[in-house]
Parts: sequence; C-alpha cells; structure tokens
Amino acid sequence: MSSETQKTEGGAPKAEPSQTAPVANVQGDANEELNPDGTPLSDKQRRKRAEKAEKERIKAEKAARLAAEQAARQAADVDFATENYGTKPMNQSRERNNVQLYSIADIHPDKDGESITLQARLQTSRAPSAKLAFFTLRQNLNCVQATLAQAPEKVSRHMLKWATSVTPESIVQVEGIISKVPKPIESASVTVKDAEIKIQKIYVVVPVTWDGQVPFYVDDATRSDADIEASQETSRPLPPIALDTRLDNRVLDLRTPTNQAIFRLNHGICRLFREFLENNGFIEIHTPKLQGAATESGASVFKVDYFKGKAFLAQSPQLGKQMAISADFGRVFEIGPVFRAEDSNTHRHMTEFTGLDLEMAFQEHYHEVSELLNQLFFFIFTELPKRYSAEIATVKRQYPCEEFLVPAKPVNLEFKEAIQMLRDAGYEVGDLDDLSTETERVLGRIVREKYNTDFYMLDKFPLNIRPFYTMPDPNDENYSNSYDFFMRGQEILSGAQRVHDAKFLEERLAAANIPVSAMQSYVDAFRLGAPPHAGGGIGLERVLMLYLGLGNIRRASMFPRDPKRLEP
Amino acid sequence: MSSETQKTEGGAPKAEPSQTAPVANVQGDANEELNPDGTPLSDKQRRKRAEKAEKERIKAEKAARLAAEQAARQAADVDFATENYGTKPMNQSRERNNVQLYSIADIHPDKDGESITLQARLQTSRAPSAKLAFFTLRQNLNCVQATLAQAPEKVSRHMLKWATSVTPESIVQVEGIISKVPKPIESASVTVKDAEIKIQKIYVVVPVTWDGQVPFYVDDATRSDADIEASQETSRPLPPIALDTRLDNRVLDLRTPTNQAIFRLNHGICRLFREFLENNGFIEIHTPKLQGAATESGASVFKVDYFKGKAFLAQSPQLGKQMAISADFGRVFEIGPVFRAEDSNTHRHMTEFTGLDLEMAFQEHYHEVSELLNQLFFFIFTELPKRYSAEIATVKRQYPCEEFLVPAKPVNLEFKEAIQMLRDAGYEVGDLDDLSTETERVLGRIVREKYNTDFYMLDKFPLNIRPFYTMPDPNDENYSNSYDFFMRGQEILSGAQRVHDAKFLEERLAAANIPVSAMQSYVDAFRLGAPPHAGGGIGLERVLMLYLGLGNIRRASMFPRDPKRLEP
Repeated sequence: MSSETQKTEGGAPKAEPSQTAPVANVQGDANEELNPDGTPLSDKQRRKRAEKAEKERIKAEKAARLAAEQAARQAADVDFATENYGTKPMNQSRERNNVQLYSIADIHPDKDGESITLQARLQTSRAPSAKLAFFTLRQNLNCVQATLAQAPEKVSRHMLKWATSVTPESIVQVEGIISKVPKPIESASVTVKDAEIKIQKIYVVVPVTWDGQVPFYVDDATRSDADIEASQETSRPLPPIALDTRLDNRVLDLRTPTNQAIFRLNHGICRLFREFLENNGFIEIHTPKLQGAATESGASVFKVDYFKGKAFLAQSPQLGKQMAISADFGRVFEIGPVFRAEDSNTHRHMTEFTGLDLEMAFQEHYHEVSELLNQLFFFIFTELPKRYSAEIATVKRQYPCEEFLVPAKPVNLEFKEAIQMLRDAGYEVGDLDDLSTETERVLGRIVREKYNTDFYMLDKFPLNIRPFYTMPDPNDENYSNSYDFFMRGQEILSGAQRVHDAKFLEERLAAANIPVSAMQSYVDAFRLGAPPHAGGGIGLERVLMLYLGLGNIRRASMFPRDPKRLEP
Repeated sequence: MSSETQKTEGGAPKAEPSQTAPVANVQGDANEELNPDGTPLSDKQRRKRAEKAEKERIKAEKAARLAAEQAARQAADVDFATENYGTKPMNQSRERNNVQLYSIADIHPDKDGESITLQARLQTSRAPSAKLAFFTLRQNLNCVQATLAQAPEKVSRHMLKWATSVTPESIVQVEGIISKVPKPIESASVTVKDAEIKIQKIYVVVPVTWDGQVPFYVDDATRSDADIEASQETSRPLPPIALDTRLDNRVLDLRTPTNQAIFRLNHGICRLFREFLENNGFIEIHTPKLQGAATESGASVFKVDYFKGKAFLAQSPQLGKQMAISADFGRVFEIGPVFRAEDSNTHRHMTEFTGLDLEMAFQEHYHEVSELLNQLFFFIFTELPKRYSAEIATVKRQYPCEEFLVPAKPVNLEFKEAIQMLRDAGYEVGDLDDLSTETERVLGRIVREKYNTDFYMLDKFPLNIRPFYTMPDPNDENYSNSYDFFMRGQEILSGAQRVHDAKFLEERLAAANIPVSAMQSYVDAFRLGAPPHAGGGIGLERVLMLYLGLGNIRRASMFPRDPKRLEP
C-alpha cells in the first residue's frame, strides 16, 4: 500500500448535533392529569409532580450536556491524520510509481519551502513536548534534522506519538518541506546545519525486527574517543562501543557515516590503483586461489579438502602473476583475496586481506618498476583528497589524526642508509638484520623529521632476509634488488626483482636449503624463458588504515577475518 | 654485457703478404763455388747443383703458394661478426642505457629504411640456404618476419649458423632495418604483411632452458581446427594440440596471439563492468571468502582447516553483498573468486571461477535492477568490439564462430512464455520445472530466430526451483521475482529480488525445510532493516567463452581449476 493509492477516508467525523433527553409528561395535558382511580389530582399532587418533573428535566439536560461534551471530545479524538503515517507492507515489487526521491545531500537553505519526499534511516528521535518531535534522518554520510509538530487536520496527536515510537534504524519515507533554520543546528551528528525538514507525512518502509534493544545506536557509534572521554565527566556520559561489539554487529556498525566513508575510500584506492595501471599498459588477471602445492611457506598456508585430496589457499598471487609475465603479458595486476594462516592477533594482521598485486617485465633495470610504484602511490595520494574530500573529512571527525605527508618528489633510501640513521639515533641494529616493527616505526619518525614525508621507499634489502626468488644485488652479494614501501613507519608494500632464470633459481633454492622438488612448478614456469621482471604486493587494508590513521586494520576491512573471527 | 659496451675487436684480420721460401746459394758467387777440399767444381758438378737448386726453388715456391692459400682460407674463416650476435648475461639490473625499443605493432612499409631495435620472442626460424635465414618474431598479438643474410664484414657464416640454432621462445634483441616487401608475406602467423626486418645484430636476452624439445610450438598452438584438419591430407600435416597438453604447459600456451587476445578481453569485460557500475553509483566491496558456516548449500562447499576449527570457502558473495546492502551501501559490486566443490567435469564448470557480482537497493520494483543489468550488458557488448577489435579478430582466426547478435532493445521474456515457445516447438516441458541444459539451448535457438538476438532475459522463474531467499511473485505464488540472463542459449547470470524481511525469510526457510539455526547469521543480517533489493552474479569466464564461442570454459580461464586440475 503506497501513499498514492490511499484514499482520504480519515479526517474528523462531524460531531452529531446534541439531542436533548426525552422530557415527555413534564408539561401534561389537563385532560389526562388524573389519579389512577380517575379522580383529578390535588393541588399538592400537582405541585409535587411539577417539582419532580423539573428535577428530571434538569437532570436530563445535564446528561444531554455531558453526552454532547463527550461526543465532542470523542470527535476531537478521532484521528484525522491516519493517511499521513503508518507502516507500509513489505515491498514485493507490486507496482511502479516512479516517485522522485530526494537526497539529503541536496538539501540547502536556498530550497526553503520546497516540498520533497525522501527515504532515510531514522537515526534518532526525541519529543521534548507532546506537540513537537525532532528526528535525525540519515543517508550514508549525511544527516538532516526533521521536525514533526501537531497541526489541526494534518498532524494528529496519534501521528506524533506513533512517529516517536518508531524504532531507530527503521527506513522511513518522509514527505515534508525544506525549511531554512535561523541559526545553525548544533547536534554533532547532523551534517545539514542550515536547513531542516518539516514533516507532513511519515511512513515506515522497512521496520526493524530485532528482538529487544538494538546493540547500539549509530550516532553513539560515530563519536570520537575524545568526545566519549570528555563526556564521562558530564551528567550524560556517552557509551564507548568496543571494537568487538561493533564487529559482532557489523551491519549496524557499517551504517555509521564514518564507515560509509571508509569503505568508499577503500573503493577509491582500488579505483585509483586500477586507473593508474590501466593507463600504463597493465592488464588485470585472476589467478587461482586454490593451489596444488604450498608455494611460499608451508607454515602459514590453509589446507583445503579438495575432493579426495588436498589443496592449499594461495598466500599471494606470486606464482600466478610471475607465470603471467613468463607468458608474455608484460604488465599485470590483480586485486583479490590473500590468505595467511598466521596465528597473529595484532592490530595489523588478518587471515584474509585484499592484495593489490602487480608484476612487470622491465627492459634494463628493476628501478623502472620501483619508479612506477612511486608514481602509482603519488597518483593515489594526490587524487584521494581531490576526489574523496567529504569522505576523508567524515572519517577525521571520528578518527582525527595527523595529516598524511607526501613529499614533493619520491624519497628513496637504501637499507644501509636506514641502518646508519637508526644508529645515529642511538639504536643498535645489525647490518644485515631485518627491521623490527619497533625500528620500522622509529625509522618512520626519523624519515618524517628529515624529509617531511610519511611515505618512502627502502631499497636494497639484505639478501638473507628476503625470499629465495629475490634477485641478488649484482655488486654486493649481501644485498638484493628488493624494496619495501612504508606509510607512517609501517610496511605496506614488499617487492623485488625476481630471479627469472630457472638455473639460477635452482641455485638460490639450494642456497636456501629448499629442495627444487618442493617448488617444481614454480621453477618450471621459468624454463621457457621469462623476461626480467619485478613487482610487489600491497595490502589494501594497511594502506587505508595508515592513510586514515584508523589504528586497527579491522576497521579497514568490511568483514574482517582473524584467527578468532569468521563471522559475520 | 650490452651491445653498447662492446668494442669493435673483431673483423677479418688482414692477410699477410706471401713470402717466398729462402733460395740462397742457388745463384752462387763464382769465388765461393769450390769443393770441400778447395778445388773448383767440375762442369758436371755445376750442372747437377743447378738442377737441384731449381727443384728446390720450385718446391719452395709451391710450398709458399700452398701456405699463402691456407693463410687466405684461415683468414676467410675468422669470424668478423662476433660483436653482432651472442647470448647476453642474465639481467641483474647492472645498468640503465635507456635503449629505445620498438614495437612490432608500429612497423609499417612507410618506415622503409628505418633502423630499429626490438625485443621479441623468437617464434620460428628456418634457413633455406646457408646464406639466408627467416625468422618470425612475436610480441603478444603481433608477429613480424625478419631475415638474416650473409654479408661481408657484417653477417658471418658463424652468425647465421648461430642465429638459426637459437631455441624458439627465447627472447631476442634484434637490431635491423625496416624493409618494405614487394608482395604480401604469405605466412599465416605473420601479422605484419607488407614489411619485414633485415637483421643486422641479434642477441639472446633470455634463453630457453627447457630440457629437451619444448612441448609444442606457439605457431602450431595458434592454428584453427579447420587448418589442422585440412592439413592432414597434405604432405605436411599439422599437429593438433590437445587442451590438456596446453593446460599442462599453460605458460607456453598463453603466449599464442589468441590467448594474448582472450585475456585482454577478459580484462576488457571486467573493466567495462566496473566502468558502467562506477558511473551508476556502485561501490566495489571485498567480502571474505573464508566463512564460518556453509551459507548456501553444504554439498558443494570446500572445507578449510582453520587453526583448530573449520572454515568454508564462499560459494558466492551472496551473504556479504546482501549485508552490505543492509549496511546502507546502496549499490555494490565485487569481482572475485567463487568456489564450487562440484564434481562436474563439463565444458562449463570449474571449481574456482571469477564472479562479477552486484547487488542493489531499489526504490519500488526489482525491474529497476533487471533493467540496469540489461543496460550493463548492452554497454559491454557495444564497447567490446569498439575497444578490442584487434583482439576479437585475433581470436576469431583460431576460433571462428557466428557473430554474437545483440538486439536493438532488450528482449525480456517471462518463464511462462518460454515454456509455451518450447511446447510450440514440440518439446514436452512442465509448467514449473527447471530448464535443462538442452532445453536452454533449444530456447536460445528459438529466441535467436524470433528476435534476432543471442542475448536475452528470462523473468519470473517458478518459485520452487529458486533459492529460499528469492522473493515470491506477489500475484502468483507459483512464481518468483527472479531472472536469468542467457548468451547463445546458456545461462550467464542468475539473479532475483531477495527476501529482505527477516520474519518472512524465516517463513521461507520453514517452507524449504531448512532450520533457521543453519542460516542464523544470514537471517540476522536483515533484522535491523534491509531495504528491498535485488542483484545477480555473472560468471566472467562464461561470458567470455560464449561471446567468443570458445567451446570450453577452461580456455577463458588463465589457470583453470576443475576436480582434476590444481596445476599450474
């Protein structure tokens, strides 16, 4: 039942004219004023009767008056607004009316007086009096204030009571008028500050059918830690909502404007990644996640029951994308899931994440690839704030953080230099040891101070801390043609020139004490001649987490997976 | 060692001037012509000596002539071309010379006489004489002919012999001159018909290190079935290459121009899919492939060892994308792997394929979504031939097939009509039975004849053959708000309006005899109010296979997976 097909059957029924109670026999006909025995009445009898009749008349008049009053009250209480509110039946695609729905983002005080219809989530409602209610209506990143005031023949007491009883998170359809407000709306959750909607009709299009109280309210879930902390000293302390509570009820949590923005930015990074690579001659590939062998490290691979045998989930598209290079696709990329069976319960590990992988045949030097990677990131960091300024601003309201610094030109350091910088800062680090999470962070701070950047590349890692397929440095056997990229002191891309020569790959396997048989299909991929190539893998969620300063990678994943979480 | 750093140290050494043998004492000084005892020589003695001297002179002259001839022969055999050919050492990124490399696609008879350097795969070589060799060089979709002819001081016999001994599929760097040819080159594998390269220098940049003969040659792997069949009656029958042989050596097989084209088209479809959806307000999501429960059908789900418990591989992003809709993302799409543990060894089933999924909240009617799907496919079918004409033409050479017919406007039929059409054509089909693979094909032919299209939508499927979460038709409980899309008589998309009301979903589960507990997280996703929505899932490889008429879905997957294949 849509509002268009509803007939005006309501409205206040007209009050019937008040009728006086029957008063027969009060003024009798003289001929009939006799005693039962037929004798005429005495004067006393007549007087008595008249008094009695008068009393009855007064009583009847009073009753009539009371009845009339009650009828009038009843009449006033008939709901004249029934067609202006209510719950619509489940949409089963019965009809199409092409109603024009309005976007909250388009509401502006310039449109004062315009009649609109919109659908939105009911975020909050409150009724400071029996005659007036305030609502916050939400569409994705945007919230608007709407008011409903009792009005004769339009907004009844019943309508107002019903509207304020609608469960938050229901989807409502509102018809109303855009109204400029004299002073900016204070509520932090409202994004349209200078206009509101005066509601004329309100319907629930989709009700909430949650049993009991909803796990939390979206406006509570949108508050910053600072706001929550500050409120603890006040009379209305705000409830902090734990990350696990959010993730357990992720559908609700994802509705916050912050999360609406985060996952638009998640898409934005993928989109910019592809745009840059497609414009640079890359083609997208899809490599299989089901593998016949554990291609990288047996320890962190998930096993799958595969009919009567076993399969393994790809820990990266490494083999697939290198085969694509050997198969002459030249420049390839893939966006897809990466699986890691690591029992790490940290802020930056997940068992499944989205890999942004690329691999590229180069002509002379792997720096052709690392330079392209620098350009790729510069493109992303330049375009994101241009195209997604509203989203970034929305996230910053809940998760304020230092601006992400991008230098004017790429900052590329060699591993050796980094070690020296750390030593100069008083840290004891070995020449050929890997950086720890802690030294990475310290290095990030040192680089930030020196180069005014949160993004840089570290080149020429020690050979012994990189995988066997990494090409050694031609000038120093302790080092390799490999690189990592960092954001805010944390690694977000690891890459290298790969050994493209099968014989040399066998030597490198031997040096790493890995039997060639364990990597047979990998080595075979290079026997038919693979061009020299390099590449890298980017963790999408890490880039997003670090760009926005979210503090935990689970906030950058729509439905995160870790050793303890497989739901929802 | 690159060609630029090589010095001209070779060249033919100059032949030394021929020297006569020593002939002292032949014309003696009279004063010294004495016998050992001091007596003068007799006339006889003098005559004898003169005769002997003359013989020695003749002998010495002959020896000198022979020596001169041998020296000349040796001189001729010195390789004057050593710097013009050879195998370069493995590229370890030692230096950058920024050599400008040429693309075969840019070779044109207008550029006759231009000196170029290019890198390419050596596809074939043949030497009809000891002084001339022909090569086919390949870059992706393009092949060019190159010739190497013996030439004094430039191309030696040794160089020619070496060049023709290079293993096909090696990557070579060639320096040469573009040369217009008088009549078109006949070889089917050569795509540049009106020009060739006259080779001056040729180096192997990456050698083939395959043990023994390569599994097959790329030019053989590029021939059409018709060509192979026709050749069987000739003196040079072409070898057919079985699909399994190709897939076992997929890196080699993928190098055929046909496969280079197929996987550029694979990317093309993804790119157009995204382009259309991004321009229509969709955002890309990444839903987890690791699931805590088997969300659709336990029978065809892969089990994963997940630490001390079990996980399941998502059979589709159904749950994830519907949760995204319930979480207010409005319009979402995902391109990602889909896993099906079905032991089906058919031409159109794989255990892992690429799903192009989308889901969309609609305003009034699910036809808003099916109309958008029609527009999406029309966009793909219109843009593919515009943007990828070379690729499509390349594939058609190996896999000729009827042109894919797209109608002027969408052809949408109801299931009921389809049943009637099949009956009219003499097929016995039940009102509410699912179509078989065979009846789908027949229907495809009937629709093609009637509507001149290879693409159409079938709407309003019987409710009982669709999943429990399908919204029933509001007007006939035997049917549902669901649709399939077909290409060349095969299903490529299945979709529907979903039940978005949790209470009604429980009813539908009960009707399907599925306990709610088995689908708890699925049902819970709708308790907080999900907007009415519909969507669908497209099999990328099916679209590609059917558009190009490839006949087997494995040809549309870079590294296909089926119950019997997990490698490479």
